[in-house]
Amino acid sequence: MHLGRLVLVGVGLMGGSLAAALKRSHAVGEVVGLAREPGELARALELGLVDREETDPAAALACADAVVVATPVGAAEAVFRRIAPHLPAGVLVTDVGSTKGSVLAAARSAFGELPPSLVPAHPIAGTEASGPAAADPALFQGRRVILTPAPESDSGAVAAARALWEAVGAEVVEMAAEHHDEVLAATSHLPHLLAYALVDSLARRDDNDEIFDFAAGGFRDFTRIASSDPVMWHDICRANRDALLPALAGFRAELQRLETAVAEGDGDYLLTVFRRAKAARDRFIEGNES
Amino acid sequence: MHLGRLVLVGVGLMGGSLAAALKRSHAVGEVVGLAREPGELARALELGLVDREETDPAAALACADAVVVATPVGAAEAVFRRIAPHLPAGVLVTDVGSTKGSVLAAARSAFGELPPSLVPAHPIAGTEASGPAAADPALFQGRRVILTPAPESDSGAVAAARALWEAVGAEVVEMAAEHHDEVLAATSHLPHLLAYALVDSLARRDDNDEIFDFAAGGFRDFTRIASSDPVMWHDICRANRDALLPALAGFRAELQRLETAVAEGDGDYLLTVFRRAKAARDRFIEGNES
Repeated sequence: MHLGRLVLVGVGLMGGSLAAALKRSHAVGEVVGLAREPGELARALELGLVDREETDPAAALACADAVVVATPVGAAEAVFRRIAPHLPAGVLVTDVGSTKGSVLAAARSAFGELPPSLVPAHPIAGTEASGPAAADPALFQGRRVILTPAPESDSGAVAAARALWEAVGAEVVEMAAEHHDEVLAATSHLPHLLAYALVDSLARRDDNDEIFDFAAGGFRDFTRIASSDPVMWHDICRANRDALLPALAGFRAELQRLETAVAEGDGDYLLTVFRRAKAARDRFIEGNES
Repeated sequence: MHLGRLVLVGVGLMGGSLAAALKRSHAVGEVVGLAREPGELARALELGLVDREETDPAAALACADAVVVATPVGAAEAVFRRIAPHLPAGVLVTDVGSTKGSVLAAARSAFGELPPSLVPAHPIAGTEASGPAAADPALFQGRRVILTPAPESDSGAVAAARALWEAVGAEVVEMAAEHHDEVLAATSHLPHLLAYALVDSLARRDDNDEIFDFAAGGFRDFTRIASSDPVMWHDICRANRDALLPALAGFRAELQRLETAVAEGDGDYLLTVFRRAKAARDRFIEGNES
């Protein structure tokens, strides 16, 4: 796979890492960063992640072979509206957003109907770091990328999206957008909300200095998760509201049962839950190491 | 500091690591493991963590210089009852339990009154691994150990407990048992309960294979925490019930507020919480790295 010109909208951890990875594997000729204002991509240019900054969408999109939208998901609709009048037919458009139903809805709204060349993607990769300086060409190596094509999507565009992500070392799978959003609400969005809730509730205590001072293993992991980009997670919570709410309610019910067991000294219940969780984890680890 | 004979009750991750560390720094002559049944400590003997297994408490405790109780906290009272008739006056007794009010209560109940030579201790160290094979002589190096002496505790015993933990590289601090239990409920016990609750609630879903298959960063950290020893955490939840319940209720209220914000699309609230949590984390990291 080789792309002559890739247009990148948003050059943070994800977009920057994709550009760096494509460049490293000589899979792209030129990366054009589409900016809102001149100078916005200075750091990305300095780091060699983009070759050229362009603020005019028509100029950026002329002769583009692919467009990657790598902004927080809340910005997707505005980006689609900006590129819609200038997007040549058949040019692959993909993204890196953590929610997929919202991206399809944003595209339908911005383009009037879903462009057949749009193939939403979600790389299951990332760190709590953000910004172009955190870009890493190895970020997608060996990681899953979920494509969520719509019924309208062109099979050639799906193949092109697959080739793009495979070029940076990812393992590509396909899934319906709605199912993706349910699975990720459970495995990623809910855990992040729990981490933010815990760190914030402890930070607001009067003895917060001491709390953080004596943070033990468990809490340290939570704080790491809670140092993720707030704007990105704000967008995800709003975009995936419909899948996140049942996940939150289910968790709250489980926590309520555990709280009752602690209050009533129901050791059998506690032990059953703890053992079942440990067994699931141990199966999971085995499954991933084999 | 040098101990001629250390009696160890419980040779898992914590007890085994303490024995290994004391041996490595030549701070102990002989480690006698007090077992309930012959052969119980075969693995610990094989690993060189204990020099001798003894099932008779009188024989073990004769000429002991210190006794360390390193069982799950739920077993502390039974252990105290077993050693009480044979413990020579003035011999340091300490432990490694994650809850301290319960250990003082267990000792008061087992001994009739608190022995002045008892100084409860909680090393803020450990991993999700358990058992003697996980023992690591460097486990306590540079980690905090919280001593929670009671008003009855002898100052000489407190000094001896401090010397023991400093001999394995720990930084020793003192705190009232009740305060310790509140701080640890927030920073360690609550996060573990959240991790167990999340992993168990996802493991019980019909699509659990897929859930674990697509586990993203956040969830992976939770599963690691949830692979801790279930019996140990069962004991902690029961022993620290009084401090854990308000911590759980406070967290549940915070989560409920976040859920409402997600449901109502209250982006300002979400962003405020996420930013405050990230700022607290960043302060915490700076504080620990300076």
